[in-house]
Amino acid sequence: MAEGAGTADGPGAADGADATRATGRIEGFLDLDLDRASRRGAPEAVLCDAKSVEQVAAIAAEYARLHEAGREDLGPVLFTRADAARAEAVLAALPDAHHDPSARFLAWPAAPPAPSGGLVIVACAGTSDLPVAREAQLTAHYLGRPTRLFADIGIAGLHRLQSRLPALREAACVVVAAGMDGALPTVIAGQISAPVVALPTSVGYGVAAGGQAALTTMLSACAPGIGVVNIDNGYGAGHLAAQIARWAPESGE
Amino acid sequence: MAEGAGTADGPGAADGADATRATGRIEGFLDLDLDRASRRGAPEAVLCDAKSVEQVAAIAAEYARLHEAGREDLGPVLFTRADAARAEAVLAALPDAHHDPSARFLAWPAAPPAPSGGLVIVACAGTSDLPVAREAQLTAHYLGRPTRLFADIGIAGLHRLQSRLPALREAACVVVAAGMDGALPTVIAGQISAPVVALPTSVGYGVAAGGQAALTTMLSACAPGIGVVNIDNGYGAGHLAAQIARWAPESGE
Amino acid sequence: MAEGAGTADGPGAADGADATRATGRIEGFLDLDLDRASRRGAPEAVLCDAKSVEQVAAIAAEYARLHEAGREDLGPVLFTRADAARAEAVLAALPDAHHDPSARFLAWPAAPPAPSGGLVIVACAGTSDLPVAREAQLTAHYLGRPTRLFADIGIAGLHRLQSRLPALREAACVVVAAGMDGALPTVIAGQISAPVVALPTSVGYGVAAGGQAALTTMLSACAPGIGVVNIDNGYGAGHLAAQIARWAPESGE
Amino acid sequence: MAEGAGTADGPGAADGADATRATGRIEGFLDLDLDRASRRGAPEAVLCDAKSVEQVAAIAAEYARLHEAGREDLGPVLFTRADAARAEAVLAALPDAHHDPSARFLAWPAAPPAPSGGLVIVACAGTSDLPVAREAQLTAHYLGRPTRLFADIGIAGLHRLQSRLPALREAACVVVAAGMDGALPTVIAGQISAPVVALPTSVGYGVAAGGQAALTTMLSACAPGIGVVNIDNGYGAGHLAAQIARWAPESGE
Amino acid sequence: MAEGAGTADGPGAADGADATRATGRIEGFLDLDLDRASRRGAPEAVLCDAKSVEQVAAIAAEYARLHEAGREDLGPVLFTRADAARAEAVLAALPDAHHDPSARFLAWPAAPPAPSGGLVIVACAGTSDLPVAREAQLTAHYLGRPTRLFADIGIAGLHRLQSRLPALREAACVVVAAGMDGALPTVIAGQISAPVVALPTSVGYGVAAGGQAALTTMLSACAPGIGVVNIDNGYGAGHLAAQIARWAPESGE
Amino acid sequence: MAEGAGTADGPGAADGADATRATGRIEGFLDLDLDRASRRGAPEAVLCDAKSVEQVAAIAAEYARLHEAGREDLGPVLFTRADAARAEAVLAALPDAHHDPSARFLAWPAAPPAPSGGLVIVACAGTSDLPVAREAQLTAHYLGRPTRLFADIGIAGLHRLQSRLPALREAACVVVAAGMDGALPTVIAGQISAPVVALPTSVGYGVAAGGQAALTTMLSACAPGIGVVNIDNGYGAGHLAAQIARWAPESGE
Amino acid sequence: MAEGAGTADGPGAADGADATRATGRIEGFLDLDLDRASRRGAPEAVLCDAKSVEQVAAIAAEYARLHEAGREDLGPVLFTRADAARAEAVLAALPDAHHDPSARFLAWPAAPPAPSGGLVIVACAGTSDLPVAREAQLTAHYLGRPTRLFADIGIAGLHRLQSRLPALREAACVVVAAGMDGALPTVIAGQISAPVVALPTSVGYGVAAGGQAALTTMLSACAPGIGVVNIDNGYGAGHLAAQIARWAPESGE
Amino acid sequence: MAEGAGTADGPGAADGADATRATGRIEGFLDLDLDRASRRGAPEAVLCDAKSVEQVAAIAAEYARLHEAGREDLGPVLFTRADAARAEAVLAALPDAHHDPSARFLAWPAAPPAPSGGLVIVACAGTSDLPVAREAQLTAHYLGRPTRLFADIGIAGLHRLQSRLPALREAACVVVAAGMDGALPTVIAGQISAPVVALPTSVGYGVAAGGQAALTTMLSACAPGIGVVNIDNGYGAGHLAAQIARWAPESGE
Repeated sequence: MAEGAGTADGPGAADGADATRATGRIEGFLDLDLDRASRRGAPEAVLCDAKSVEQVAAIAAEYARLHEAGREDLGPVLFTRADAARAEAVLAALPDAHHDPSARFLAWPAAPPAPSGGLVIVACAGTSDLPVAREAQLTAHYLGRPTRLFADIGIAGLHRLQSRLPALREAACVVVAAGMDGALPTVIAGQISAPVVALPTSVGYGVAAGGQAALTTMLSACAPGIGVVNIDNGYGAGHLAAQIARWAPESGE
Repeated sequence: MAEGAGTADGPGAADGADATRATGRIEGFLDLDLDRASRRGAPEAVLCDAKSVEQVAAIAAEYARLHEAGREDLGPVLFTRADAARAEAVLAALPDAHHDPSARFLAWPAAPPAPSGGLVIVACAGTSDLPVAREAQLTAHYLGRPTRLFADIGIAGLHRLQSRLPALREAACVVVAAGMDGALPTVIAGQISAPVVALPTSVGYGVAAGGQAALTTMLSACAPGIGVVNIDNGYGAGHLAAQIARWAPESGE
Repeated sequence: MAEGAGTADGPGAADGADATRATGRIEGFLDLDLDRASRRGAPEAVLCDAKSVEQVAAIAAEYARLHEAGREDLGPVLFTRADAARAEAVLAALPDAHHDPSARFLAWPAAPPAPSGGLVIVACAGTSDLPVAREAQLTAHYLGRPTRLFADIGIAGLHRLQSRLPALREAACVVVAAGMDGALPTVIAGQISAPVVALPTSVGYGVAAGGQAALTTMLSACAPGIGVVNIDNGYGAGHLAAQIARWAPESGE
Repeated sequence: MAEGAGTADGPGAADGADATRATGRIEGFLDLDLDRASRRGAPEAVLCDAKSVEQVAAIAAEYARLHEAGREDLGPVLFTRADAARAEAVLAALPDAHHDPSARFLAWPAAPPAPSGGLVIVACAGTSDLPVAREAQLTAHYLGRPTRLFADIGIAGLHRLQSRLPALREAACVVVAAGMDGALPTVIAGQISAPVVALPTSVGYGVAAGGQAALTTMLSACAPGIGVVNIDNGYGAGHLAAQIARWAPESGE
Repeated sequence: MAEGAGTADGPGAADGADATRATGRIEGFLDLDLDRASRRGAPEAVLCDAKSVEQVAAIAAEYARLHEAGREDLGPVLFTRADAARAEAVLAALPDAHHDPSARFLAWPAAPPAPSGGLVIVACAGTSDLPVAREAQLTAHYLGRPTRLFADIGIAGLHRLQSRLPALREAACVVVAAGMDGALPTVIAGQISAPVVALPTSVGYGVAAGGQAALTTMLSACAPGIGVVNIDNGYGAGHLAAQIARWAPESGE
Repeated sequence: MAEGAGTADGPGAADGADATRATGRIEGFLDLDLDRASRRGAPEAVLCDAKSVEQVAAIAAEYARLHEAGREDLGPVLFTRADAARAEAVLAALPDAHHDPSARFLAWPAAPPAPSGGLVIVACAGTSDLPVAREAQLTAHYLGRPTRLFADIGIAGLHRLQSRLPALREAACVVVAAGMDGALPTVIAGQISAPVVALPTSVGYGVAAGGQAALTTMLSACAPGIGVVNIDNGYGAGHLAAQIARWAPESGE
Repeated sequence: MAEGAGTADGPGAADGADATRATGRIEGFLDLDLDRASRRGAPEAVLCDAKSVEQVAAIAAEYARLHEAGREDLGPVLFTRADAARAEAVLAALPDAHHDPSARFLAWPAAPPAPSGGLVIVACAGTSDLPVAREAQLTAHYLGRPTRLFADIGIAGLHRLQSRLPALREAACVVVAAGMDGALPTVIAGQISAPVVALPTSVGYGVAAGGQAALTTMLSACAPGIGVVNIDNGYGAGHLAAQIARWAPESGE
Repeated sequence: MAEGAGTADGPGAADGADATRATGRIEGFLDLDLDRASRRGAPEAVLCDAKSVEQVAAIAAEYARLHEAGREDLGPVLFTRADAARAEAVLAALPDAHHDPSARFLAWPAAPPAPSGGLVIVACAGTSDLPVAREAQLTAHYLGRPTRLFADIGIAGLHRLQSRLPALREAACVVVAAGMDGALPTVIAGQISAPVVALPTSVGYGVAAGGQAALTTMLSACAPGIGVVNIDNGYGAGHLAAQIARWAPESGE
């Protein structure tokens, strides 16, 4: 293979390679947003599935390095949509991270903040939506909210919803994950006074494939009080719910 | 304007112009399916909105002519999606037709068959879906079923549905019309044992514009027992419901 | 026109016509959700554009009748997406309603609740998005929140955004209305810690026609903390923002 | 991996874990709808392809456990869209289940109810649509209807349809499965008086890929009397057909 | 209004204004393809609906001028998709043109070429598709083919198709126009040996709105031997059919 | 696994199993259209990719059996879209079939009919479109037309097209295969007088993925004289071209 | 109508109303980007069609006021997509503006900058694309480039393109406007070395309706060297072309 | 397998097989556009992913053969979208080519032209967009421009953009690659005076899957001065940027 194409400002190396390691900017591809916690009140999150295993490993290693270098202000960092290979890459650098394989989620350090603010409940109809629902719950958990997960609410049998209503009414925010027809957020929002974060999942086939049907249903909901996030964006739903519940009084339980 | 282009087999005249008037075939554009009642057990219907006023008038006049000519076996004929001008054209030829302007529907003769078969209930959430819901009800009515219309069921407030459940459970078939998120058929189908005909309406805006969101919701319904028709196809929904309820025992009331 | 088709349970009349007037259920098409305020903590809203002028007039008249009949617990009722004819119908029955023609919005009674909770700011880029932005602001206003409107923030010139950042950081919730590329909510959410309600508008042409481009941009936002509502759903955005800001401490100003 | 994140109400465990085993609710992800048979007149069905193998195994085991515990009222339970691994998981717990691998379908117990109601015929054009067609037939069979399957009807050669017409006219309901252009349901519905359940399949390529062309054709059918289900939803089609045929007189043969 | 912006090569005038009038190039917007007949064997056609009335008038006038100037080789020119105002503009310049208002079609000179080649049959289901079907027939007629139009073939009643089969089998090419589900071309192509030109029309509503359902059905047809043109492109269908039938032996009749 | 579910008319066996082997109808899934050659003038084709290997093997074996049984009238049968496994299944039963692996095409018997009719030219821009282009050429070849293939025509360099124009003008029909922007058929159709069959291929990425961009370009072509087939439908394109060229005079070369 | 709802910070008035008039910020809806010329090297443009007539009038009046107040640095301001009513509103305030009604375009002051940089040629196929093509040309003209317009280039007859090639090769940038199949930019880009700005227009019907087919064709172009703008965005195309041609040597002519 | 089907002009061999090797036309599938450099001022590029490994190998070998045969005028040739197998095939024939595996890019000869013209900067938000961004940079590099790559600009944290603005303002053209919401090009274009080439990437999920959201955002951008290319078309973006920057003065650095 020929040499010579990769001169300093040429295509062989991205700019920024000379960035100082003190700021979390490395190798021309990484510029950690370390002050996000202070600016936005929430930790950094690393979306893993569009990155190579090597890139994920490098990012995890950079956090480990900064931690060893004595930076005290690193809030928890979340690694989302991490398959087995990428999770292994994170754990190699940060072995004490918390890892939930079904949610493809890691958090480091493993200890969440002390819970504050109102209760966040994540609700879904059942087994298929659980991975995304758990990603939402874990995100809210690591942003410092008390959380619960109800995985047995489906509108094909309203009795299951009705038995959960008293508990749902104690939440400061309810995340509702649903695939297929995506009708659950509408039904729940019509029964409670707290905001609902609607989280469409890609569970479905035919016209429901990829979550499109669930998404449009949620955006079209007859009941007001619903904010929708992207399909399978459990992280975004949990983040928004944690922000919403921040000022709410702590609920019972 | 020049002459000469319209010779016998040329483009000036459609074929079939020589068809005998006895069979309801006229003017190269009309071939009434007069034996549909015997073949399919249901009357002919004329979809008006894709026809010119003149064409609708000619069809109505042909029925009047056949009636005056003594044909006894003409079942009721339905005129659907007829705006004011087309309805006027029908009534000019068939002045004793039944006309429901809000449903854009006419039936001739006005007297429906004696009711037989099971009860058909048409349900919708409210005012905006009423025109299409009424088209469904009128179609089932003129195909000979007993019918009811519930226009006050919405999933944003489940108490309204629950108060209607005992009545809904008496139906042999329930047509559920809904726009916006289109979630009502799923919720109803989950509570009853009769088949549900899901009828999406074009009521909505944004992602729900034109009824697409309602349609995909209905096709993706978690609850089984639902057959879907085209958006705003009240005629098709009522027709299918009447076929479904044909063999059912007559319900109470 | 023929008689006889419209017997009691037949297609001539919807069921529920016998409902008692005391509950806000009239004429087979209307079933006011009068207890929504107690159940959900927010008033009823009447979406006008899918209803006929006559239907809107009947609903407004029913509220006037209930008020005269002495019902004290009627919260404010909102009439949304009301064009000139429908607004006139409302004002005929409820002449002291507040009417904002550009937002196609009416509220009755005109006096909003005393402000409570955190500040809701509605931001948009300029003139074209104003009607929807105002609908959002008015809704939050009538749900009892203090509100402000910034109509001069556009990402094509970041200096305008930056001069507004100190004020935006005082809000408990920011509604961001945008058409065309819909990139404004992402940019704002990246700079503040409060939740953002993203409100796509139908302003645009070509691939942006109808607001689809803005909607997908908002759902795909790189920054977390964003809940999206349907295109042009200013009412839904304002409602959600009011719910979110309910528990927040009152901001400065 | 760190401990401590999974406290009782925290993200480590879904709620409902304390649910009593007597009701078929286990492990925070499972809430069997055991009374569906009484409420809806049809057995529970487990959609397998969106569940993990472990989840499917757990559900099958729960049915086995309830059976051994003496519950007599468990109707047949259907497992749909089960690939080889999931089918194996079911058979491990319920070894005497009936399994049709090509239809990806299992039923337990294997003995269907005694046939009652009218005949359900499932028709398709040929080999490619057979798996979905068989899923429809098996569902109707286990819901208690007499069934037949015609796999050799295609509109590219009308003689094959015509030779089947006498038999088709004996059915109380005909399910028509078709991919590609999806025109078969229209043609059949135009020739018979029974309702047609149109079942689009994902067989096709180019504009027909995924079944979208077949679906829109069926929804747009010129002939009335057609209810459409989601693409590849053989279970839903068979379920609806069984409901429709319930009250019909038994046909000949 | 200011002057000075429109200098010679500036934006006030398109280039080509100096083109000589002898070649049919005028005013910077018009460049008639006068040698198309010799190059392609078919006359020029002017698509009117995307042009202003003034532009259509100028084009017609240019043909009149060239004719008066003695050019003998001007084949027939077709004006398609011409509404009343544009047709009037054509007739003002070319008063002896043939005009079919329902097909929005004009031809000048009015006398078609002597028929040659095989028979072109245009078939459709009925009244709504007639305008587009006639545009196809007229185009083939003015390209010199013998033509017939069958406007009474629909697949909801196969007997109508079957009675037309002997005639259809005499055609060298059959154009089949259909809206809604668009299934007719498949059925016809399966019964004859001549090529079929499938012409989707915009007749339909819901998922069939704008002709999209018909188009995808035709492209997905199970039967081979079908070439599809754009929705409502009667001109293109007639042109293609005339080319196909050029070499065929003249059929009977 | 349980027995007993598969009784005669039950779901264990499709109807038609008793069909006589003499007619090419076997095993409830196969009904060969053996008289298509006489009815439509073209051989049967078996679309392999939606069938299992076993089903393809059974069909090939049935043709071998009928041949051995002495049926003389079996025209050539084509096997299309056959991957390696399915091709092997065909060759196992019909070892002397012609097989073109790149076109995924087999024909049996291998000898094509003696060429008759006009020349069919298949043109494409280059290497990526070759498999589909060859499927079209082989189909026309086995339907009895003389054929040529030009694989080096692209509109990014018009000189390549221009050097091929004299040859293209000798064709009775030109099939033009193109992916990406799909503009080649328009350009060719504008230069010749023969009909063009436009064959979009799935070559492309981004907005051109799957061939959608090519398809819409071809349907929107400014030049008349183009009939479009489904994406990657080389068989359909070749079939249509062979029908079109049937009556044309044999061209030179 | 009630008073009291519109307090200072309430919904009756947008914020910013107190902005000083010196900066072009008025009435809470207007914040002119007066320094865009210095920041971006191009004048401000006012997109009129999404604004009310009153808003357009207010903006034009503000420019007149700033001019009278002695601001010398106001570059030319463009008003785009202005229908007759909005153009009249502009001319009322700025009567000496240049107005091109067919392009729905106004510029003030009317005198363009002295031409500099390379030649911008705008090419289109004919009459229907002219309004958008002229908007592009006028924009480049008022940004200071020499411009030409070729309105007679279509790919259905390549001779017209070829006669224009020598001129096209003198341009520093060519804007190519096309509707329908949108293939013209590909063909031109393949013949020249200057960049091409592809400008899809909404001219077309069926699958080409709204310009979607032209847009995807242009994005999929086989030839490199093409940058695409939104459908009908003549302003954006002209702006980009003027930027591209800024540094080019002046061409001949 | 049978012989005889592949006669000279038959389907066994594409035409052109007899083309002389001197012109880079081989084997009926290859026709190298060797004069593109002189006609368009840019080298030939071979899009590899739609070609088989064998075809890529044959093309590379042809270049090697022409080089050995003494042709001096072969500009650099680029191989794009080349996975490992295809890259290996290129390197086998042209072992001294430059290869960037992450960008799936090869160039031969490896030495780029001496840089001329203005600076091209490629900007993206981070790791996921890097492969496509690098393809753009390498293309511009081999077309002879000085280039830089900024991989750390994201709109979720505006400080990163602002620190890069001085450098960005030195570019003659900026390529901005972005997936997800695709908002970065708008923000950058609003801050600089050079043209922006917007390059959507397929990075994203849900509504952003495949790059569609990014593409529509870029086409809808509020800021003018943006030309968009197809999703993931790094080659096209770099090519266009190199053309744009050709005449610009060399920037500082």
